[in-house]
Amino acid sequence: MKILIKNTNLISMSEKREKYEKNIDILIEDSKIVKISKQINENVDKVIDARNKVVMPGLINTHSHIAMSIFRETVDGYTTQEWLEKKIWPMEDKLNKEDIYYASLLSCIEMIKTGTTTMNDMYFMTDSIIDAAIETGIRLQTTRTLMGYDENEKSRLIELEELIKKYSKNKLISFNVGIHGLYTSNLSYVKMCLEFAKENNLPVHMHFCENQKEREDIIKDYGVKNPAEIIKREFSNTHNILAHCVKLDKEDIEIIKQTNTYVSHCPISNLKLGCGIAKIKEMLDEGICISLGTDGQGSGSNLDLFETMKYTALLQKGINENPKLLDSYEILKMATINGAKALKLSDKIGSIEEGKTADLIIIDVNDVLTRPVNNIFAQIIYNVKGYNVETTIIDGKIVMENRKIVNVKQEDIINKCEKIIDRIKI
Amino acid sequence: MKILIKNTNLISMSEKREKYEKNIDILIEDSKIVKISKQINENVDKVIDARNKVVMPGLINTHSHIAMSIFRETVDGYTTQEWLEKKIWPMEDKLNKEDIYYASLLSCIEMIKTGTTTMNDMYFMTDSIIDAAIETGIRLQTTRTLMGYDENEKSRLIELEELIKKYSKNKLISFNVGIHGLYTSNLSYVKMCLEFAKENNLPVHMHFCENQKEREDIIKDYGVKNPAEIIKREFSNTHNILAHCVKLDKEDIEIIKQTNTYVSHCPISNLKLGCGIAKIKEMLDEGICISLGTDGQGSGSNLDLFETMKYTALLQKGINENPKLLDSYEILKMATINGAKALKLSDKIGSIEEGKTADLIIIDVNDVLTRPVNNIFAQIIYNVKGYNVETTIIDGKIVMENRKIVNVKQEDIINKCEKIIDRIKI
Repeated sequence: MKILIKNTNLISMSEKREKYEKNIDILIEDSKIVKISKQINENVDKVIDARNKVVMPGLINTHSHIAMSIFRETVDGYTTQEWLEKKIWPMEDKLNKEDIYYASLLSCIEMIKTGTTTMNDMYFMTDSIIDAAIETGIRLQTTRTLMGYDENEKSRLIELEELIKKYSKNKLISFNVGIHGLYTSNLSYVKMCLEFAKENNLPVHMHFCENQKEREDIIKDYGVKNPAEIIKREFSNTHNILAHCVKLDKEDIEIIKQTNTYVSHCPISNLKLGCGIAKIKEMLDEGICISLGTDGQGSGSNLDLFETMKYTALLQKGINENPKLLDSYEILKMATINGAKALKLSDKIGSIEEGKTADLIIIDVNDVLTRPVNNIFAQIIYNVKGYNVETTIIDGKIVMENRKIVNVKQEDIINKCEKIIDRIKI
Repeated sequence: MKILIKNTNLISMSEKREKYEKNIDILIEDSKIVKISKQINENVDKVIDARNKVVMPGLINTHSHIAMSIFRETVDGYTTQEWLEKKIWPMEDKLNKEDIYYASLLSCIEMIKTGTTTMNDMYFMTDSIIDAAIETGIRLQTTRTLMGYDENEKSRLIELEELIKKYSKNKLISFNVGIHGLYTSNLSYVKMCLEFAKENNLPVHMHFCENQKEREDIIKDYGVKNPAEIIKREFSNTHNILAHCVKLDKEDIEIIKQTNTYVSHCPISNLKLGCGIAKIKEMLDEGICISLGTDGQGSGSNLDLFETMKYTALLQKGINENPKLLDSYEILKMATINGAKALKLSDKIGSIEEGKTADLIIIDVNDVLTRPVNNIFAQIIYNVKGYNVETTIIDGKIVMENRKIVNVKQEDIINKCEKIIDRIKI
């Protein structure tokens, strides 16, 4: 299948190209971008006229729990602990594999409709989540969530191993070793998971210092002054994606910088759960690679990474009282190429370049909120939202065209999810 | 003209009604809401079937500068002072009355499309702004911006007086006395403006303590310990709308509480310009009435008050590290009835009640981000955006129907604005 995108404005996020190029054609053959140039003339199966539109890489969400779509807006009026104990855990307990499949399908649709083409998930009944991703055509990195207090208790790691085998042929699916958190496992269990990651050359994905209580628990349980000491001591030979990192002090940030660690910043969830605001400016000053996550909709409300980009920029400008911080182009990097680096997929995705995989979105900026354009990058960060995404292409396949999802029936899936929440709600 | 809205879900924001009512009909006759009930049968000119939709009061934006639409996203990379000196002031200097008219039209369309039915503006060449509001059918409270150092220099007040006379017949247009700020006038000039407000029984609208420098300037210029002392001493006999109030300490908040003062909270602009985050929790604890503003698009990016509602809730939860703060229904109040109170218009607008003026919006919540609904109020705050507004009615007239603006041609106005910015850009 050959697709030719004509006459577009390109934000490639490639260091080899101009930041913004006008009147560009992009030729896609099967899953790859084969040519980027002005005026490509080629016989193709499909031409997309993207005149006055913007093409950019599909967004990469580096932390979520997509099966939680059905728990959206259940947290109002609760503390986090009350919410988990009174709402989430009792509802989760009633979920079966089919529920997880449909709830995940809902999220896959939401992501495709808001311009996300790759996501990094952590949950359970993972094969249902993977099947939903395959069904919709979205790229997924995932795990079987790991937690425990006994290094002889290998059942979850065996599940992960079986998942890796089962889906080894599917190039849209990759795996990491998802350790829930240092506060929900002991050191020997964590070490076993890290060994597995090293043996299988997989990234490690873990919640880390999301709130003050977690920080204090780690300090107490592991007998350290700084939680980051554990990262340095135990996670130095793995590629690590640490989600949240809200409650890090200066020393933690300096220690983490010395490891191969990528931070997944989830500002909206962090605010909503009253965790606070991560010190992103300080992490950037230390050269730590920041990517963006939404967290699950239970706390993050939705999976629209355009919104996350805006919060990321505004929060750091606001709390540091410096409007020059976090330039719009830097924010675009966080949601694209930095996400690809975090997931060890930057050889394939995260920027639009000849030879890379065709994961890209076409944005319609022709509306009253988005014209005139004084600065295209800032316009995308501050005024474009997920609903401006018109067409989404993943692995060279059109998965949404003119806002219509291609592979599944949105209405059927929403109806199914409404029935699930009606059944399990507390 | 009689309009009947059928079968809707109603969030009236009226203390006399349930917070959320299903399957409700609303009868509008000329400019008024005449009946709210189940199953109204009446011969009308137009029936709107709002099944599965939500009807709520039109949103009220209590602080903006709508002619700044064309300056959207010119601030990236500048400090506020650099931005004003190098970009905004030189561009503003080139604006003529026609420019202000078209730039304001663009904003009126933006507001109507994002569910705002009333706004409070402060700028210059005010008659062009008023003419734009009238043309689109939006409700406007406005002023001629007042600033000066000479109580004999009455030209701006005379301009305001003439505006009030000129538009006295138009019931959609009301006025306040817009003093730019304590730091851009001296005390005798401010006193003259306040006298004018009292004589004409008009609210006073003023920027106040937007950033640390302004706070320090006021303390120095007026010889006070707390800027709020000036409010207590001079503004005690007027109805005051103070925009921003970011840099207030505990004492300021206590002092302001003792006056008839309404705060217009503009969180997005405050973050973007690096001002900080207003202490909204503390103000609410003192019983101060908080309404919401976007500020002009130069700093606020856009006029979508749904976004402002979400930022308001999340910021206070986040910085106070308490997820139970700022309940979604309280936030809805800020954007509706509190705004009406701030503008002294709550006898007419701000809630949907029999006898009140028909300023209301119909929201489509039937999408992948907005279903299933676990909590309708939280769903509106966290997942509904301006683009979910399907129909907007102001003063009993449909100004947008199924996303199409009724009174003006959007495309022509956008084109005109692009020509303006091309001409004046620096």
